[in-house]
Amino acid sequence: MSLLGIDLGGTKLAMAVFNLEGIVIDRQYISLDGRKGREVGTLITNNIEALTESDQFGNDPIRSIGISVPGISRSKTGTVWAPNIPGWDDYPLLSEVQVGTENIPVTIDSDRACSILGEVWQGKAKGCKDAIFLAVGTGIGAGIITNGIVLRGAHDISGAIGWMALSKPFVDDYTNYGCFEYHASGNGIARIAQKILHEEKSYSGSLRGKAIDEITSHDLFSAYEMYDPIATQVFQVCIEYWGMAIANLVSIFNPEKIILGGGVFGPAIQFIPSIKAEALKWAQPISIHQVSIEASALGSDAAVYGAGHLAKQAMQTKD
Amino acid sequence: MSLLGIDLGGTKLAMAVFNLEGIVIDRQYISLDGRKGREVGTLITNNIEALTESDQFGNDPIRSIGISVPGISRSKTGTVWAPNIPGWDDYPLLSEVQVGTENIPVTIDSDRACSILGEVWQGKAKGCKDAIFLAVGTGIGAGIITNGIVLRGAHDISGAIGWMALSKPFVDDYTNYGCFEYHASGNGIARIAQKILHEEKSYSGSLRGKAIDEITSHDLFSAYEMYDPIATQVFQVCIEYWGMAIANLVSIFNPEKIILGGGVFGPAIQFIPSIKAEALKWAQPISIHQVSIEASALGSDAAVYGAGHLAKQAMQTKD
Repeated sequence: MSLLGIDLGGTKLAMAVFNLEGIVIDRQYISLDGRKGREVGTLITNNIEALTESDQFGNDPIRSIGISVPGISRSKTGTVWAPNIPGWDDYPLLSEVQVGTENIPVTIDSDRACSILGEVWQGKAKGCKDAIFLAVGTGIGAGIITNGIVLRGAHDISGAIGWMALSKPFVDDYTNYGCFEYHASGNGIARIAQKILHEEKSYSGSLRGKAIDEITSHDLFSAYEMYDPIATQVFQVCIEYWGMAIANLVSIFNPEKIILGGGVFGPAIQFIPSIKAEALKWAQPISIHQVSIEASALGSDAAVYGAGHLAKQAMQTKD
Repeated sequence: MSLLGIDLGGTKLAMAVFNLEGIVIDRQYISLDGRKGREVGTLITNNIEALTESDQFGNDPIRSIGISVPGISRSKTGTVWAPNIPGWDDYPLLSEVQVGTENIPVTIDSDRACSILGEVWQGKAKGCKDAIFLAVGTGIGAGIITNGIVLRGAHDISGAIGWMALSKPFVDDYTNYGCFEYHASGNGIARIAQKILHEEKSYSGSLRGKAIDEITSHDLFSAYEMYDPIATQVFQVCIEYWGMAIANLVSIFNPEKIILGGGVFGPAIQFIPSIKAEALKWAQPISIHQVSIEASALGSDAAVYGAGHLAKQAMQTKD
């Protein structure tokens, strides 16, 4: 028996076939190539059909499917909101996939939820019942497991920690992103550096080598390597915000692990010791010593592993 | 069949006998009278014995017991940490109570957890599966239910939201209380008013009628009624912090209800419209419209109702 995990991203589809122990026995990446709406649904169903009907898995055909989606999986309706896929405001993914899969269970969850499930199954949070995946990429979100179960909330939008309020007073800039995401996401880092560059006319460092409005978080990381003063300033502030947000998650959840992932962690893992020191100042003083704060082991594969774990959990529920 | 709910506070024991529908059929309050350590345990066991062996409940004897404790209930060991009861650092309450109760199940949880369970059973969060009790008294804490289950964390100290980081930069004053509790708990309100009174030599309002270091949050509420400028200033800042903290709970948990209770809510319920307006600025914009923010219906009885609900849940598990 095999499990199929699918991670739908904003630009590509990652698929992995796992055995029950979580070993990858086949994997494929397919570009979305600008597909939108129903074309994306069709791409998924066609690939599922090809894999479930394939005889390449011999005596271990695919018996359960998990799908990670880049947005919100509405558990009551089986529909998906995925802001980066045009036409996916309330896309009926579950019903569409189930047409072709008949007796094979299909489970869908958000990439945040899948990322922490992946780490629990095969990554840094193996065996944990209380663990959090803090994803810092273009935006910020968290996948949260409490007592072994994904935290969904009343309407499936829990973990929206990019909106965490961390710094008074409120400024209008927070309206579109949330305070934490405004200051400390990949896009936030770039935006704040751009703002400083517009203001600091006297600065003549390496970041001047590019049009200000094209500066990205990658450029900031490169500049930081060269002791650039603006990059240093931006990351010092980020470290404070990351530390405060982690402290809040620790005080609220008393978790065993917090896993840092997403595109920014990545290069920001060099700051983990400083982030821990910052979190230590703010957090509940017993809880902060009971948690381990670590970089993701699975990186960009966390969600596809988590999708595999969703598939496995569905088998166990069925048995 | 009846249920016994016991709420151990820092100064008194509240006991209520419930029927299965949650109607109180008997209630008693007993002062702790300065008892400490084992004396408190004995007071509890003696009262349990008297009630369970009493024939006053006729054909409905007590068949399950829930106990709310003012601190941390360590679920793995059955011991209790209660900072306001001398000698209760790791008190073996469960084993002590079970000696005399034989076949009657005994369940212990924190007052925070019991408060939200009480509201879910008989208060403002009736029937909710995702709800939070924000208790603002001398300190600040939260009882949190997700998917119908109390959030415990890895070591039973989840919900320590008095430690929520809400305002940079870190100052040493936060070390003993946490940022949120420092600014916006009952003791915090008094402390901040005292600090302002020491500094504002020119102020000659009603708060000057008392020794500065004896000013309490009650005095502040009274002064606020009289449009006192210091009280007004203190509560304006509190409203910001309460709003930010509630926003964070909304963005993280996507709950159906947040119930405000504890001694400060109480008189601070007059600020709920302003607190909601503040939370609206910061929170995830969809979640904040899916939550209802309300004052506790049960007030200081929330925990004893929750203890009754613990007792009921234990019966259901047993069946």
